[in-house]
Amino acid sequence: MTIRYPNGKPYRTHHDKKTNENQPKKKKVSYSKRGMTLEEDLNATNDYYLLRKQAVIHKKPIPIQVVNVDYPRRSAAKITEAYYKRASTTDYNGIYKGHYIDFEAKETRNKTSFPLKNFHDHQLTHMEMCHEHGGICFVIIRFSTLNRVFLLDFPLLYKWWKQQFEEKGKKSIPLKEIETDAFEISYSLSPRLPYLKVVDHLIQLQNT
Amino acid sequence: MTIRYPNGKPYRTHHDKKTNENQPKKKKVSYSKRGMTLEEDLNATNDYYLLRKQAVIHKKPIPIQVVNVDYPRRSAAKITEAYYKRASTTDYNGIYKGHYIDFEAKETRNKTSFPLKNFHDHQLTHMEMCHEHGGICFVIIRFSTLNRVFLLDFPLLYKWWKQQFEEKGKKSIPLKEIETDAFEISYSLSPRLPYLKVVDHLIQLQNT
Repeated sequence: MTIRYPNGKPYRTHHDKKTNENQPKKKKVSYSKRGMTLEEDLNATNDYYLLRKQAVIHKKPIPIQVVNVDYPRRSAAKITEAYYKRASTTDYNGIYKGHYIDFEAKETRNKTSFPLKNFHDHQLTHMEMCHEHGGICFVIIRFSTLNRVFLLDFPLLYKWWKQQFEEKGKKSIPLKEIETDAFEISYSLSPRLPYLKVVDHLIQLQNT
Repeated sequence: MTIRYPNGKPYRTHHDKKTNENQPKKKKVSYSKRGMTLEEDLNATNDYYLLRKQAVIHKKPIPIQVVNVDYPRRSAAKITEAYYKRASTTDYNGIYKGHYIDFEAKETRNKTSFPLKNFHDHQLTHMEMCHEHGGICFVIIRFSTLNRVFLLDFPLLYKWWKQQFEEKGKKSIPLKEIETDAFEISYSLSPRLPYLKVVDHLIQLQNT
């Protein structure tokens, strides 16, 4: 049975779970005090690519469940009650050189490895499906304390994701392995994170 | 009754999530009394395509500017002040047969023509850029009073969009012209709006 608010909108029992998973977003705020976040760097980079007509890649809006809206006279509709929802896909997608691009961006303060718990099942499932349909899927990982950024192609990410469920599987990807499996992206002035250079390489690999 | 996964999490189709997202929109509510909205039909259709692994196409979340968030103890972060933002892209995108798909869905109660004011500059600009990068872009138009749905390919939409600024330019596309320029999509049981059939045709045209 669906429990409903007096206004008829369904009550979500799942909220607690979902927002707990969203709590890392709070961390982002603290990161911003120490410099640009990965998200800011990527948004600036995507703007750069967009203006130069190199690619059309956008960050998707954060999914929010709106429960109540006020309509004050003469002014904008004001949302007075809403909750963060779990995203059903990845954060970024778009088109580059005719290719569908789909990726997730993750930051860790860890210095030696990237914890796999940063991903959710549904994100991997989404990337797997896009990959099967011929899309270019990857994750951009930033070690914020080291200020090093890597692009890890989906098939390799998936290999790491699956091994965690095996006996003695690792719960995180060691930085040393990331240095081998992934491509490091060096910061530049403009664009800040020239990740499409790596994507060019992935396209070449796909064509061979 | 809520159907649950073995791990206790409630099962919710993608469709549920997406349609709820928009409930506060006033127009939505009034439309829903007269049957399914175009958005609901498209979400159900996209779920169908996703489950059958035919395509990965999602509606993007509505962009919301969050101003204030409360963190009550033991419960979900509650957004207490937020506003709707104007979307910078189109509503739907994804991948189908290796092609980047990008489209907007629009409804009109008008019976004889489709008013071009339903579009914003930036939506056309976005579609133009995606089109230039090799994406398949279009608009799905529903004449809600007539319950007829059409898919209009971007180049033809753009032709109509530009002519409105010319002297004696029309401010809307007459239905008769849409019947000629666009592809009508007939409702079916599953998927409800089999628009990928038309996309197959567009892909063929692109390849010839």
